[in-house]
Amino acid sequence: MDVYEAKKGFEELLEKMNAIEQAVALMYCDSSTIEPKKAGEETSKVIAILQTEFFKSLVSEQMKQYLEVLKNNIDEMDEITKKVIKRINKEYEKYAKIPSTEYREYRELTAKSEKAWADAKENSDYNLAKPYLEKIFEYNKRFVKYRGYEGHPYNTLLDDYEPDSTVEKLDGVFDGLKIKLVTLIRKIQASNKQINTKFTEGHYDIEKQRQLSKYVLEIIGYDFDAGVVTESAHPYTMDINKNNVRIASRFFENEITAGLYASIHEGGHARYEQNVDDAISKTALRGGVIMAIHESQARMYENMFGRDINFIKFIFPKLQELFPKQIENISAEEIYESVNQVKATFIRIESDELTYSLHIMLRYELERMVLEEKIGVEDLNNIWNQKMEEYLGIIPPNDKLGVLQDVHWYDGSIGYFPSYLLGNIIAAQLVNTMSKEIDIEESLLQGDFSKINEWLKENVHQYGKSKTPEEIIKDSTGEGINPKYYVEYLEKKYGELYDLK
Amino acid sequence: MDVYEAKKGFEELLEKMNAIEQAVALMYCDSSTIEPKKAGEETSKVIAILQTEFFKSLVSEQMKQYLEVLKNNIDEMDEITKKVIKRINKEYEKYAKIPSTEYREYRELTAKSEKAWADAKENSDYNLAKPYLEKIFEYNKRFVKYRGYEGHPYNTLLDDYEPDSTVEKLDGVFDGLKIKLVTLIRKIQASNKQINTKFTEGHYDIEKQRQLSKYVLEIIGYDFDAGVVTESAHPYTMDINKNNVRIASRFFENEITAGLYASIHEGGHARYEQNVDDAISKTALRGGVIMAIHESQARMYENMFGRDINFIKFIFPKLQELFPKQIENISAEEIYESVNQVKATFIRIESDELTYSLHIMLRYELERMVLEEKIGVEDLNNIWNQKMEEYLGIIPPNDKLGVLQDVHWYDGSIGYFPSYLLGNIIAAQLVNTMSKEIDIEESLLQGDFSKINEWLKENVHQYGKSKTPEEIIKDSTGEGINPKYYVEYLEKKYGELYDLK
Repeated sequence: MDVYEAKKGFEELLEKMNAIEQAVALMYCDSSTIEPKKAGEETSKVIAILQTEFFKSLVSEQMKQYLEVLKNNIDEMDEITKKVIKRINKEYEKYAKIPSTEYREYRELTAKSEKAWADAKENSDYNLAKPYLEKIFEYNKRFVKYRGYEGHPYNTLLDDYEPDSTVEKLDGVFDGLKIKLVTLIRKIQASNKQINTKFTEGHYDIEKQRQLSKYVLEIIGYDFDAGVVTESAHPYTMDINKNNVRIASRFFENEITAGLYASIHEGGHARYEQNVDDAISKTALRGGVIMAIHESQARMYENMFGRDINFIKFIFPKLQELFPKQIENISAEEIYESVNQVKATFIRIESDELTYSLHIMLRYELERMVLEEKIGVEDLNNIWNQKMEEYLGIIPPNDKLGVLQDVHWYDGSIGYFPSYLLGNIIAAQLVNTMSKEIDIEESLLQGDFSKINEWLKENVHQYGKSKTPEEIIKDSTGEGINPKYYVEYLEKKYGELYDLK
Repeated sequence: MDVYEAKKGFEELLEKMNAIEQAVALMYCDSSTIEPKKAGEETSKVIAILQTEFFKSLVSEQMKQYLEVLKNNIDEMDEITKKVIKRINKEYEKYAKIPSTEYREYRELTAKSEKAWADAKENSDYNLAKPYLEKIFEYNKRFVKYRGYEGHPYNTLLDDYEPDSTVEKLDGVFDGLKIKLVTLIRKIQASNKQINTKFTEGHYDIEKQRQLSKYVLEIIGYDFDAGVVTESAHPYTMDINKNNVRIASRFFENEITAGLYASIHEGGHARYEQNVDDAISKTALRGGVIMAIHESQARMYENMFGRDINFIKFIFPKLQELFPKQIENISAEEIYESVNQVKATFIRIESDELTYSLHIMLRYELERMVLEEKIGVEDLNNIWNQKMEEYLGIIPPNDKLGVLQDVHWYDGSIGYFPSYLLGNIIAAQLVNTMSKEIDIEESLLQGDFSKINEWLKENVHQYGKSKTPEEIIKDSTGEGINPKYYVEYLEKKYGELYDLK
């Protein structure tokens, strides 16, 4: 096979894999929004078949041959193709090392485990989920052995989500941070500041909330011609492709902030996907670079822009227009306070911007300890509760509000949680650099995101997966990942809000 | 390869093909309802890749080998598996005979032709579409040569849609019918009967029309847990699978009958799909038997039930409730008259129950003559207009209202039109038999479809593709397809409505 044939075959195979991925993504969107009740079982089956077909292509003999020829002729390739080859080769090597029967068994296990988890959560009984989780960790340990690791077995799993990260790097970033966050939370808990929460407590018409959601998405620049806004029990963003980036939000009648900030959060993810450069989005480098950078965009729009006093001042007239009665005696400043209240909660996804990071550290520490065999799966619930007390001062009264709240481990996402926290850190670091070039406060006060969006497109979005997370951070901020800006941001914001010394 | 291996491999391959089909069906549903504007191009590309994958599997060396082993051991198979093998073998032989490059070229051509057709229709200029249509007919003639034919080249194309039909059989059914239909239409056109059309002329709130649509679908027994009702520019039913049967209806503010009867028509299709026996819907025999029988169900629910005076009497209170002003001075009888008015129209899909059949005959005669090379593609618009005058007494003033109105030929569906007319004929024949066992009038008057639905499930729906159309008709009515009942039905209904002697 000559280079030309190899490149053509390689591209065709990637096109097929891409087509399957897009079909599966659409099925996911559909099943979480309008799919009829009885169809779920068959959809899961169809998705499993298509995913198997995807993996068969990835680890196929064909793929192996293409990659060999292409790697031997790598100098002839353009820059983008080089990166595509590198990325696919990495994926190939990862999955080729795992025996395919074992991988299929594992996927069958995770499908069953998700159901078992839902059942266990419903019954608030960790014992029902434990046997499944034990097996999942066993498989993961075995996969790490097959795949090998450098430094620490957790690094191999982490690599699936954060290619540049290692336990050593994470510890360097997280350890100092944890002490500072816990200290800040303790100070806030001890402060006498009374937060006015009238804004969050009203009754808000769902249809009006949809209008508000559309309004804020338009402001932040979500392209409605290249996406659809839907509703689902769990908010998400799905990039079927660059021109088909779907947001699912959700609204509650007795609560306005959940829907508003879900929309802005997902809008942040979506802007990323919609802004990847055209040349890149035609390749396997399409889509935002994985996880932490992606999460940084969502959290930046949600918290650093969406919860900023200037943004709230800008949308205040719209809130008055849509909800004249509810807003009657509330000022923009009071809204600002109520959407930034710090309050220790049991549930991660209900937690505020500050305590959220500690929820993540807890999970990271636990999954790592299980992998290191320092603790067993059977200890997870108790240690979970101990850490909750240590970090946030509250103890979950049951497993549903504790160890059973997240699906991640049960679908096999071990090593995934750190990305959420890295996202917060990176968001603050990027905004710090951006603020030297752009008057962010003024942009938010004017509801004009054009400069912000342009900066992010230029420095982050356009690259898709053609840069690594580390490259993106370094090229845009001039240094490696640094939690300092996140701490500064939090201390300033909450110091003012809670009148801390 | 032993039988066991062949059967296992065969089933796995079919499962993969089924998964691809379902994904493509969902993509179609999505793209016609909520897909964002900019996503269309990529979706077409992805669908084309998945369909190529489907055809590669169908005509693969693997498939060939499986079929050989299975055919050699056919006696060991159960009845359903025998039929599955027969069906897939037929598909295999069809496509294996066509060189795959030519087939791909053809599919690229039809994709382009659909766009050219839309453009030509927009400009009402047949010249813009003609070169594409010429090529499409050329390909089809060539494919017929590859595939071979018995009796008449049109039979091979017809076989794709109506496995039991031949030109000879169709002519036997259609020829006598045409004269009777034309005679009946002439009589109606000469009658002095004035139809009250107030019902169709009002302004009807779209949201209320949606409620009406839901109401009638509930009455006819559409299972909302195994389907979704959406809206699209062109109404359709898509069976992603038995538990996921989607209807797209559409509503206009200045017209109520289009939306109402689109919903009932598609509801008829959907009931078929939702009622296929579970054991069959797990196989490649899933889904309703192709075309004519399917269309018979849609037309039966739409025209023979939905436009029946008894059904209209039953839904009359609901119409009054939803549209009190519009219905104020209209009786159920007047609604009956207005939804059954016979009026020659240029556009097939806007035509009434009676003239519709002549629209179909015209198309059948034209496509057949081109295939026989009795006329050329360049003559189609003129002969179209001549036949319109002959059958319906009107001449299309332009190509948009004439030869350019349907997309079928441009997407390659040559030989497809006869099924529509066969559907009308079969519907009348089935209802004639059903009426001997069930008091249909009383069922409609009570809005109780349970007996009707049970009869159809028992005689038609449950079988999916495990029976041929001919078997279904013969087993349920005791005779072969017979247009007599259709003529009787029309003559009785319109004789009364138009006071004909």
